[in-house]
Amino acid sequence: MKYLISGGTLLLSSMSVVAQTQQRPNIIFFLVDDMGWADSSVAYGEETYPLNKRYHTPNMDRLARMGVRFSSAYACPVSSPTRTSLMSGLNAAHSRITDFTTAVPGVPSDASHKPEALANDVLIHPDWNWNGISPKEGVDKTIQVTPYVRILQDAGYYTIHVGKGHWAAAGTPAASPYNLGFCVNVAGQVAGKPQSYYGQENYGNTKDNWSTFSTMNLTEYYGSDTHLTEALTLEALKTLDFPIKNNIPFFLNMAHHGVHTPITPDPRFVQHYLDEGLDHGQANYASLIEGVDKSLGDIMHYLAEKGVADNTIIIFMSDNGGNSENKTKGGILHTQNSPLREGKGSCYEGGIRIPLMMYWPGKTKAGEKMDVPVIAEDLYPTILSMAGIDDYKTLQELDGENLVPLITNGSGVDPERELLFHFPHQWKPYQLEDIDYLSSMRKGDWKIVYRHRTGELELYNLKNDLSERNNLAGKNKKKLKEMAVAISRKLREYNASMPMLKSTGEPIPYPDEL
Amino acid sequence: MKYLISGGTLLLSSMSVVAQTQQRPNIIFFLVDDMGWADSSVAYGEETYPLNKRYHTPNMDRLARMGVRFSSAYACPVSSPTRTSLMSGLNAAHSRITDFTTAVPGVPSDASHKPEALANDVLIHPDWNWNGISPKEGVDKTIQVTPYVRILQDAGYYTIHVGKGHWAAAGTPAASPYNLGFCVNVAGQVAGKPQSYYGQENYGNTKDNWSTFSTMNLTEYYGSDTHLTEALTLEALKTLDFPIKNNIPFFLNMAHHGVHTPITPDPRFVQHYLDEGLDHGQANYASLIEGVDKSLGDIMHYLAEKGVADNTIIIFMSDNGGNSENKTKGGILHTQNSPLREGKGSCYEGGIRIPLMMYWPGKTKAGEKMDVPVIAEDLYPTILSMAGIDDYKTLQELDGENLVPLITNGSGVDPERELLFHFPHQWKPYQLEDIDYLSSMRKGDWKIVYRHRTGELELYNLKNDLSERNNLAGKNKKKLKEMAVAISRKLREYNASMPMLKSTGEPIPYPDEL
Repeated sequence: MKYLISGGTLLLSSMSVVAQTQQRPNIIFFLVDDMGWADSSVAYGEETYPLNKRYHTPNMDRLARMGVRFSSAYACPVSSPTRTSLMSGLNAAHSRITDFTTAVPGVPSDASHKPEALANDVLIHPDWNWNGISPKEGVDKTIQVTPYVRILQDAGYYTIHVGKGHWAAAGTPAASPYNLGFCVNVAGQVAGKPQSYYGQENYGNTKDNWSTFSTMNLTEYYGSDTHLTEALTLEALKTLDFPIKNNIPFFLNMAHHGVHTPITPDPRFVQHYLDEGLDHGQANYASLIEGVDKSLGDIMHYLAEKGVADNTIIIFMSDNGGNSENKTKGGILHTQNSPLREGKGSCYEGGIRIPLMMYWPGKTKAGEKMDVPVIAEDLYPTILSMAGIDDYKTLQELDGENLVPLITNGSGVDPERELLFHFPHQWKPYQLEDIDYLSSMRKGDWKIVYRHRTGELELYNLKNDLSERNNLAGKNKKKLKEMAVAISRKLREYNASMPMLKSTGEPIPYPDEL
Repeated sequence: MKYLISGGTLLLSSMSVVAQTQQRPNIIFFLVDDMGWADSSVAYGEETYPLNKRYHTPNMDRLARMGVRFSSAYACPVSSPTRTSLMSGLNAAHSRITDFTTAVPGVPSDASHKPEALANDVLIHPDWNWNGISPKEGVDKTIQVTPYVRILQDAGYYTIHVGKGHWAAAGTPAASPYNLGFCVNVAGQVAGKPQSYYGQENYGNTKDNWSTFSTMNLTEYYGSDTHLTEALTLEALKTLDFPIKNNIPFFLNMAHHGVHTPITPDPRFVQHYLDEGLDHGQANYASLIEGVDKSLGDIMHYLAEKGVADNTIIIFMSDNGGNSENKTKGGILHTQNSPLREGKGSCYEGGIRIPLMMYWPGKTKAGEKMDVPVIAEDLYPTILSMAGIDDYKTLQELDGENLVPLITNGSGVDPERELLFHFPHQWKPYQLEDIDYLSSMRKGDWKIVYRHRTGELELYNLKNDLSERNNLAGKNKKKLKEMAVAISRKLREYNASMPMLKSTGEPIPYPDEL
């Protein structure tokens, strides 16, 4: 407000603008990649599990003490479906973006499209939108949607994306965050993981190492010891200076590549985990977690320093469960999300239950634990509502619900709501029984799991059996049938992509047809 | 202004804000790479030369009819010195950034550092700032400066960079436009040229073709037929929506890679040049020129459509003279800037005299031709003055002068001002007599040229001898001495980097010592 024309009315007007904009909160959406539910010292569950004791995440702890943490927050089993659910407000079964979008134009990259998978499986992959979302019409293998970020920008929010995109394939509009409504983009594109976390390796941008996964826009750190998590944080803070100085409300999509593979050590944090007796893989992973924690702390520190912490909402989330099928992570495969069953790629809890916290100064209750189940697509109407935007038009009909009533006074969201998870794919080049080709639904304490390959149904009561080890399908046939009907109704309603049986060429049956 | 709190005062305030911001013009700085003085249908000189007749640049023509064009605008012989002169307000001899900055951390990339050059030349390259400018202190081989873009941003301008950066080396702060004061960066980094102009080739981002010169942030166009010039234009227009909608004054640094090498055809425009009988190289180059012309036209069209054309200044410029030493450009080497002598890399007119136009609605006179010599570093105070910023602090003492009085009423700049050009380098891996190791100075109609390798001085009167073919050094010894004193004084004042004679290990003499 340095260039006001002199005069009393205009000075008043300048003050009014400040008052006006300060009414609208800034929002930081802090998204971690592949971080499991128990992968921090924050205890999201009923108790503090061994994994919670492993990690040192003082800044996540602080955020948990300041705001609301969710014990039963969900996302999709893999990255792109969650990220496109966030951006569209649609369940992944509904958007038909059920696996990761391809980084190469015109070539689906999920394992079930590979000749080996097609040769060896009893199933054939379904049709699905492997090019992701699109803000424009007529793009093959995409669903056209109105992104919430576009609505935020249209309402005057200064919208910033930093880090991983992964909403769509190369060669399609949503490969660029600018087409989704972002004013600023640092590094966001089609990659699902980083080529390298190291400045010394130019984050993959070297002649011999380059791939689509090399992270863009960080040339200034080439050759330095700046870790990717740190570099993205520094870039994010730079971009905030302008809106803060000019009293423009901002939305920052701080989308870290951490803690996705490659699981390599963050030298700033790895030693004390080794000293504590973890194996190298475990210590490397823990160091990535702590790097992300430092990023969160640095951002909170910046907000306080700039005097905007009291008007800035922070949402902290992971895009899916922790990876339980990667040897470089150390430990024993398929146990790394204990007490949850399995991990990334799976519709068991380990793949879909995620860390989620929300801090809204003056609105959320400090240190509250919230048990009502919520899901990624809820963030779309929630973020818009936080921004004061309740009246808007979208091409798609949203599946998500506004969580603002829930986090501000504990109401407004049915705890018995049906939450659907659908992964009609083979995840890895080899078959994995508890990860591939599953659907599941949570409704209250109950959970049904549908195994596409075998046609088996399983039933769990999560209240007593968080680890999904006690299949009640045989014991409680009434509840099984009720849940089979519910999940089938939802799959039909969403026109979900169903895999086909190779033997018949027909789609697999819905659970209520078994 | 959709979210105003209701009430008369606030409605008034909203209108006042609009009025306030509309006082401050938007500024588009449209920078072409390696475009020669005669490389358009705009006649910058006294007459229309054959090259002016070759090119079809209707949008440049239109801008020339709307605003002021300069017959005697100058830049440095190569890219980085001009770009850093723009960003610092310093003459290149003063900043000691006299050749292109390196794309590789820690390794100077100019030819005189190569072992062959050191072995075969009579000269040894001088010390110089081959890492470019830096907004931070203590960065090796840089000069710390306050970039004018930082001042614009601090004053509330929404500052956007799109395209080529080339202000500094990888691994240093100015590798990132965000560190120079830009709010938004699309594609800007350390590269001095594009790896490919073609979407089909992912602008160089393919496994086999990738290099530091591959253009970032354009993933959405991968595999498409979108030419790089078009892609950068589309990206620029996207970023303008937010400031226009929110009445924030913007500064767009539209820095095209075109028309730098690789000289490959722009398929949209090449055919009619072939039909007109040009060779392939000439036609390819002309098609790149016409692509840039279309970009200018698209931007002007967008401004009109958005209703901001009347409040938007357009500055059109090239960063140095046209390349006269590249066979892929077709024609006959060393003649491609006719009537000017030589081209890029040279301190003769072909290397340093550039197209420059300025259109300031309501301020500049339509169709005016301005003959007062001006130089790249003048743009720093000029752009700030256009933005209404006349009181600011910089780390460096500016060499450039504010051109606003000149373009608005023809005064304020001494037509006899001394303009210095200094290129103490070998440009190519092989020696070039009229390009390498030269300094020159223009003062009024007079020009002195100093050949570092031989110690020869030449004198030209540009008024009668635009092509610098009639060396008056023997005939007019008085003027030669006067000019030798003037150029030497300037070189000493700027503490310019002087090459050393291999025979003595001493710096070459100043011209007034010869």
